[in-house]
Amino acid sequence: MEMSNHISTGKYAADISSIRDAQVRIKSFIHRTPVLTSESLNAMSGRKLFFKCECFQKGGAFKFRGACNAIFSLDDDQAAKGVVTHSSGNHAAALALAAQLRGIPAYIVVPKNAPKCKMENVKRYGGQVILSEPTVQSRESVATKVLQETGGALVHPYNDGRMISGHGTIVLEILEQAPQIDTIIVPISGGGLISGVALAAKAINPCIRVLAAEPRGANDASLSKAAGEIVILPETNTIADGLRAFLGSLTWPVVRDFVDDVIIVEDKEIVEAMKLCFEILKVTIEPSGAIGLAAVLSDSFQKNPKWKDCCHIAIILSGGNVDLGVLWDSFRR
Amino acid sequence: MEMSNHISTGKYAADISSIRDAQVRIKSFIHRTPVLTSESLNAMSGRKLFFKCECFQKGGAFKFRGACNAIFSLDDDQAAKGVVTHSSGNHAAALALAAQLRGIPAYIVVPKNAPKCKMENVKRYGGQVILSEPTVQSRESVATKVLQETGGALVHPYNDGRMISGHGTIVLEILEQAPQIDTIIVPISGGGLISGVALAAKAINPCIRVLAAEPRGANDASLSKAAGEIVILPETNTIADGLRAFLGSLTWPVVRDFVDDVIIVEDKEIVEAMKLCFEILKVTIEPSGAIGLAAVLSDSFQKNPKWKDCCHIAIILSGGNVDLGVLWDSFRR
Repeated sequence: MEMSNHISTGKYAADISSIRDAQVRIKSFIHRTPVLTSESLNAMSGRKLFFKCECFQKGGAFKFRGACNAIFSLDDDQAAKGVVTHSSGNHAAALALAAQLRGIPAYIVVPKNAPKCKMENVKRYGGQVILSEPTVQSRESVATKVLQETGGALVHPYNDGRMISGHGTIVLEILEQAPQIDTIIVPISGGGLISGVALAAKAINPCIRVLAAEPRGANDASLSKAAGEIVILPETNTIADGLRAFLGSLTWPVVRDFVDDVIIVEDKEIVEAMKLCFEILKVTIEPSGAIGLAAVLSDSFQKNPKWKDCCHIAIILSGGNVDLGVLWDSFRR
Repeated sequence: MEMSNHISTGKYAADISSIRDAQVRIKSFIHRTPVLTSESLNAMSGRKLFFKCECFQKGGAFKFRGACNAIFSLDDDQAAKGVVTHSSGNHAAALALAAQLRGIPAYIVVPKNAPKCKMENVKRYGGQVILSEPTVQSRESVATKVLQETGGALVHPYNDGRMISGHGTIVLEILEQAPQIDTIIVPISGGGLISGVALAAKAINPCIRVLAAEPRGANDASLSKAAGEIVILPETNTIADGLRAFLGSLTWPVVRDFVDDVIIVEDKEIVEAMKLCFEILKVTIEPSGAIGLAAVLSDSFQKNPKWKDCCHIAIILSGGNVDLGVLWDSFRR
């Protein structure tokens, strides 16, 4: 198989060049999402905040950037056979939508017990849902079988240079929209988003601080940074359902070398941030998407002298796929 | 009192010149709100839709544009005495916020039974809440008393050329952001927003259609257009609490002469549109703000051959001040 030009030749899975290539490749397919500001939230945080609204991205989350880059990086022969992934979340819908735009099949392996609305999302974008048992073993063996039968290309949700490069395009936009920023706060899960953000930001301006925001109940990135190696948790417990993955072989080196710190956030702070997004920003945010605002308002950030010079902070509102009933229930808890 | 340059010399309360003046006057205070698009909503409507997100405006609604223009049009002597209005809605908060920016007092007459959250909004922006009995008579007599005691300037929520000019600036932005539009759909209540929009749009390009969207239970604009004079309803009944006002002496001539048609929308269509805004656009919209989307999706619009050539439609999402609990209740009904 021909090597595409998305493969970085350097030490990491992506670089500023692969990110700029991604921007050209996906530009006509993605939304250039707006940056919103709020005097009320500036006053609450004591900083100037710039909210990059990836919740308005196609598919409702940043994932579409990477998925689009991966799909349109494929050569025609490979593309014709389609793409395969296992995910029941935003990645699945984003990949299905990107595949639909190129007119190629997307095979999405989904555990039987996945929420119906998420399966519907995948189907709405023309993705082919293939059910597995709700175990990691079953999911992986079904995905392997689909890969063998179709000859399709696997597109991993985050451990993939094409995904990382696509996500990095967010920074190119932010730096045009709010060139004064000195800090970017990014949700961390598998590390695809923050890897793209960190590689782009540090290449353009090494002084920009890149901070990860992570839920207390899934704090593997924080533990990994402390241990100097990938830590896998036996279980996770957080309302932020999009932040339960662990770092991968391609994302860990970037997180290790370029993420300045990890801010741990409590679930109740995430819920409060979702509420502020709804009431003040007028934006629908899923729990994972609201964690950046939660982080900047948290005591652990506000009282840490290390971050007192973070004055102009970009916060990536990574996604908005939340059921209104779930939102309402979380507010009343 | 010196006549400010916001007073139009023409037949109507504002014109393209007063609107361009307003844009210069308010530019540094307001948000240039983004225009969002959605392939899903394009597919549902069979048109290309451009959502002008005034829900992201300061104070959460377009009202801040007009309020800001009114406040910054005052000469220094008049400004020092402050401004007065009677409103418990978005206008009250917008006027308080604009007054705060100029550092002058805002006296807001609010009926005793107004929702607490709306009074809180006014107070948050430094407005002085003055309670009246919950009758029109009491409201007006209290306002008159406040005007006499303070020497402040009355800023009417919609029957005011400065408000109309400020709102018209929305069109100047839309035509830069989406120059291909051929139609603008605007919520109608007292007519301040649509007057500004129509005067700006028709002056720049008379071919642009300006359509009003009105709830069935407060269809006075539709009746007024049919009767050729202002119709006042004995009562109104709609979920769109921001659309219960009637046309005024300054807005009626504009609506009569420049609004191409009024689309009547059912409350259940408004609720459905709010839901689509939440789920697809990821934007918080109050019922009054969602009526434009409801209109474009309604049978009365879709099946009307008059509007089959409306291909590129700007929809003004006029405001986002809705309580999540209210939103949730309306969805479950």
